[in-house]
Amino acid sequence: MKAYKELSREELQSLQKELRAQFDKLKEAGIQLDMSRGKPGADQLDLSNPMLDVLNSSSDFKGVQAMDLRNYGILDGIKEAKELFAELMEAPVDHVMIYGNSSLNIMYDLISKAMIHGIAGNTPWCKLDKVKFLCPVPGYDRHFAITESFGIEMITIPMDENGPDMDMVEEYVNNDASVKGIWNIPKYSNPSGVVYSDEVVRRFANLKPAAADFRIFWDNAYAVHHIYPDKKAEILNIVTECEKAGNPDMYYQLCSTSKITFPGSGVAALITSPANIKDITKHMTIQTIGHDKLNQLRHVKFFKNAAGVHAHMEKHAALLRPKFEAVLDTLEKELGGLEIGTWLKPTGGYFVAFDTIEGCAKKVVGMCKEAGVVMTSAGATFPYGNDPKDTSIRIAPTLPTPSELQKACEVFVLCVKLASVEKYLETK
Amino acid sequence: MKAYKELSREELQSLQKELRAQFDKLKEAGIQLDMSRGKPGADQLDLSNPMLDVLNSSSDFKGVQAMDLRNYGILDGIKEAKELFAELMEAPVDHVMIYGNSSLNIMYDLISKAMIHGIAGNTPWCKLDKVKFLCPVPGYDRHFAITESFGIEMITIPMDENGPDMDMVEEYVNNDASVKGIWNIPKYSNPSGVVYSDEVVRRFANLKPAAADFRIFWDNAYAVHHIYPDKKAEILNIVTECEKAGNPDMYYQLCSTSKITFPGSGVAALITSPANIKDITKHMTIQTIGHDKLNQLRHVKFFKNAAGVHAHMEKHAALLRPKFEAVLDTLEKELGGLEIGTWLKPTGGYFVAFDTIEGCAKKVVGMCKEAGVVMTSAGATFPYGNDPKDTSIRIAPTLPTPSELQKACEVFVLCVKLASVEKYLETK
Repeated sequence: MKAYKELSREELQSLQKELRAQFDKLKEAGIQLDMSRGKPGADQLDLSNPMLDVLNSSSDFKGVQAMDLRNYGILDGIKEAKELFAELMEAPVDHVMIYGNSSLNIMYDLISKAMIHGIAGNTPWCKLDKVKFLCPVPGYDRHFAITESFGIEMITIPMDENGPDMDMVEEYVNNDASVKGIWNIPKYSNPSGVVYSDEVVRRFANLKPAAADFRIFWDNAYAVHHIYPDKKAEILNIVTECEKAGNPDMYYQLCSTSKITFPGSGVAALITSPANIKDITKHMTIQTIGHDKLNQLRHVKFFKNAAGVHAHMEKHAALLRPKFEAVLDTLEKELGGLEIGTWLKPTGGYFVAFDTIEGCAKKVVGMCKEAGVVMTSAGATFPYGNDPKDTSIRIAPTLPTPSELQKACEVFVLCVKLASVEKYLETK
Repeated sequence: MKAYKELSREELQSLQKELRAQFDKLKEAGIQLDMSRGKPGADQLDLSNPMLDVLNSSSDFKGVQAMDLRNYGILDGIKEAKELFAELMEAPVDHVMIYGNSSLNIMYDLISKAMIHGIAGNTPWCKLDKVKFLCPVPGYDRHFAITESFGIEMITIPMDENGPDMDMVEEYVNNDASVKGIWNIPKYSNPSGVVYSDEVVRRFANLKPAAADFRIFWDNAYAVHHIYPDKKAEILNIVTECEKAGNPDMYYQLCSTSKITFPGSGVAALITSPANIKDITKHMTIQTIGHDKLNQLRHVKFFKNAAGVHAHMEKHAALLRPKFEAVLDTLEKELGGLEIGTWLKPTGGYFVAFDTIEGCAKKVVGMCKEAGVVMTSAGATFPYGNDPKDTSIRIAPTLPTPSELQKACEVFVLCVKLASVEKYLETK
């Protein structure tokens, strides 16, 4: 295959004509497909249906704390659930708080509390002239939406296959006291699938923040979400690394069972230092009566222990592998050698990040829509939705069925080709 | 029975000696009882155990919106749950939002959002010099804890058997733009059991607030929590009354199934105008992935409709009636005619409010504790825990078993007698 950039104007025009014809035919086919959303497929959800049977009218509702878990009480999670998450995330039990159904909501809440009450006795952020967050890109749009909603200034940090540019991170965090946080998805990052290298994690743990209330938001959303059981990524443990570096309170680690059991009906957890937990529960006792203890118990009874979760995740992986491979095979087969796109091959998580040539992402996503395939909005993976080079596209292969996905990928690569040809024609 | 205030010093001294002897004997008995907490008894929780069976691995998870309720999606509650709450609370479906497991958390969240983002385009409260809330007393300590935690100034409003002093409420709300809200439990109020009269509700609906973002917090926590099926209290509907008065956006009505099914594993709802719902969901879409739709479905499948809830509540009432009667009978039998305490006879809700003679509530609660009976802290039902006359005590009869409760009541009335005698002796 000849790279498109090597083609003459005439060759490009002839190719454009051919691709346009294919595109018009596709449009007429009236396809309606969705590759935009990081939602599990129905077959994945079926895996957790038996969880709905483990708690029933004849269950024992007394937890190990000898309390009736059907009643009020226990603010920070039942002991059994803390133990499960502690084992799973390799953290001490006293570093674990169990929340409700959404780790996104935990992050929103932590920032909301920092705004109004301040972190650990520091000035509430709403009283400061300026609060900044570092945002490795491409990243998770809902992280950026939270910081934007609180009026926090977002600073873009480029990422490579090892994680964020740590020179930049250190420069900002160690010198600017208005930098209060950084978003991270350290394992199988959304959307790139990047796994933070040991060096990156160590440099995070060894930051010397100018702000006492600087916090690393360590959204370990895909901690156990491997696609290849023989290529399981491991990252260094942020808890122990921060403790070793003398920064025991610097991180908030998040995780949930949203993509393990049921999104919306799962259990979310915060892993952080006992000092942070004390600071947080002080407010939480006013905020809520506590979270759903029966759902916590239901999860514990279903999984029993971390091994139970890992075994369950292998079943997810078996369903996800063919989907990821369909995407990656189509990209390779159709775009390999054309030099009109780059992508990483994730071994876990929920996404494939695709980069077009400069100035093409919006156009590709628009064309896909015209042809009936919904993609995540171009730019969504950047703060303020602003991808300055207009190259970044997020592919979400999990929700469609395998045959739908195959069709959607074919539409996608055609749109990439056509948009690239037309881009080159603008300047050739 | 002769009123204690009529007794001579000698009679009081002799009575004190006798009561002290009884009290010392009680202390030796090593009782350990709790009348402090508005928690349902285990027998009440058992009523809802079958709810855990209605949703199981072979259920249909497609709701009426043709979505898989096991997956992401639906921010403001499944349609079936909105319909159930709409019927139960006699509100239009488009006035209902379903939240998570805690109406307390809804109220906290509404105030948190008002602080940071402002209500409906008004200035965020955190930018104002002063924000005030009106607090009818005696009231719910956790309401007051929320406003206190946000630095909101609380103004005490006295209540009688018809509700808050509406002259005072109107005076404050209609003239002071820093008054942004008022706490209410309009039916079977916590702790007094007071049911707001029609006139009180109408005067609420017809307020002419100086602040555009003034909101009535209408915590209808005990909406269907009758104790006597033949003496069901009804209050005017805040939704229709506010609409009639031209104040359609002035209220936030809260309710939950915490004391219908399982506290902590229930479903909470906000009932307010579509304009308010629009304002709230704008932020909520950033705050969370949505609430637990399977638990919503579980509740709907269990109750089917409002009639199902009402039938269920009659079973609760049958368990609660003997407990309330044990308290009220003991108070009447032991304290009737002594003029050392007053109390209302609630026909619903979770509490009995008791007023001692001035300056005795703390002492009574302290004595009960000495004798092994935990009561809600005296003063807890006032803002800042400050009951200026030191008279108000909250009795929570629901959690103990009937025999425990009988014993606890006997301790309580003895402590009231002894504390009153000693109070009179101070001045006689």
